[in-house]
Amino acid sequence: MRKFEEVTTHTEEIFKGKIIDLNVDTVTLPDGNTSKRELIKHPGAVAVIAVKEDGKIIFVEQYRKALGKSTLEIPAGKLEKGEEPLITARRELEEETGYTSDNLELINSFYTSPGFADELVHIYFTDDLRKLEENVEGDEDEFVELAELDIEEAVQLEKEQRIHDAKTSYALLYLKLRGIK
Amino acid sequence: MRKFEEVTTHTEEIFKGKIIDLNVDTVTLPDGNTSKRELIKHPGAVAVIAVKEDGKIIFVEQYRKALGKSTLEIPAGKLEKGEEPLITARRELEEETGYTSDNLELINSFYTSPGFADELVHIYFTDDLRKLEENVEGDEDEFVELAELDIEEAVQLEKEQRIHDAKTSYALLYLKLRGIK
Repeated sequence: MRKFEEVTTHTEEIFKGKIIDLNVDTVTLPDGNTSKRELIKHPGAVAVIAVKEDGKIIFVEQYRKALGKSTLEIPAGKLEKGEEPLITARRELEEETGYTSDNLELINSFYTSPGFADELVHIYFTDDLRKLEENVEGDEDEFVELAELDIEEAVQLEKEQRIHDAKTSYALLYLKLRGIK
Repeated sequence: MRKFEEVTTHTEEIFKGKIIDLNVDTVTLPDGNTSKRELIKHPGAVAVIAVKEDGKIIFVEQYRKALGKSTLEIPAGKLEKGEEPLITARRELEEETGYTSDNLELINSFYTSPGFADELVHIYFTDDLRKLEENVEGDEDEFVELAELDIEEAVQLEKEQRIHDAKTSYALLYLKLRGIK
């Protein structure tokens, strides 16, 4: 048995949605007691740190209903069932920004909210972009606008909480460490 | 109206739990069409990047039911209703690690999963720790074990996916940039 493993004795399926499912598991704890765990299932996601030849970083602005406001984030999207993360990353980059890349480097994968969700985000980096000649249609219920910022502008917007999510804050530290000017 | 704002026309309350609530909102999109948004409400959380005098970083190992495995993360916990994040941060540090600090610096706050959840994590830093003389009791259904690692050990464990969550990967970049050896 793995350390501190919690053994499921019952799973209650609460909700099956378009994007997330919710189960409540009854578990036996390491000390023999019982507890409940509220668990979100998510297909996983990708995000792309994309830097143009002129050093500008590509962001997308979009309204986030969960937050009740619009944010600037690095391009991202959820995995389609059975889709390779690299393919999703290129598709989302194309749909959201009008750029593409044959050279997307996987730099990290992390869980966003391990306390209650299994969402795993794969983070790619590229500084090898080319502009598409034609726009690629994205999701019909997604409205995004492109923003190209240098690192100082992005850090300022983070202080103003216009950049305000984990993957994008991670991206800014990554770019600073990489020495992007 | 804010850019790309989605106007809620109906809220269906699916679930109210101990930690999360789930609503499905029907929204009017900027183009006038209708869509559904699956939205998790979460009280928010804190996390602490804690560095000892000898340069070791403090991690906690715990089983994460959502992931089906145990992970090494920086100390963290969810906000209690009405509690100041700084108070939560000190309490979680004390309960999970046996250390405390009068000098916790707020370095960032970010949403973990803006696509579907409002969980906001406040990240604190301290290198001013003192060991408590007596253990502080934590949540009765939480089993954690302390690990003290230097940055190279932590980066290696991240490569092995034992460190595998957004806030802790963010913490490692933060510490590298800060020049922690």
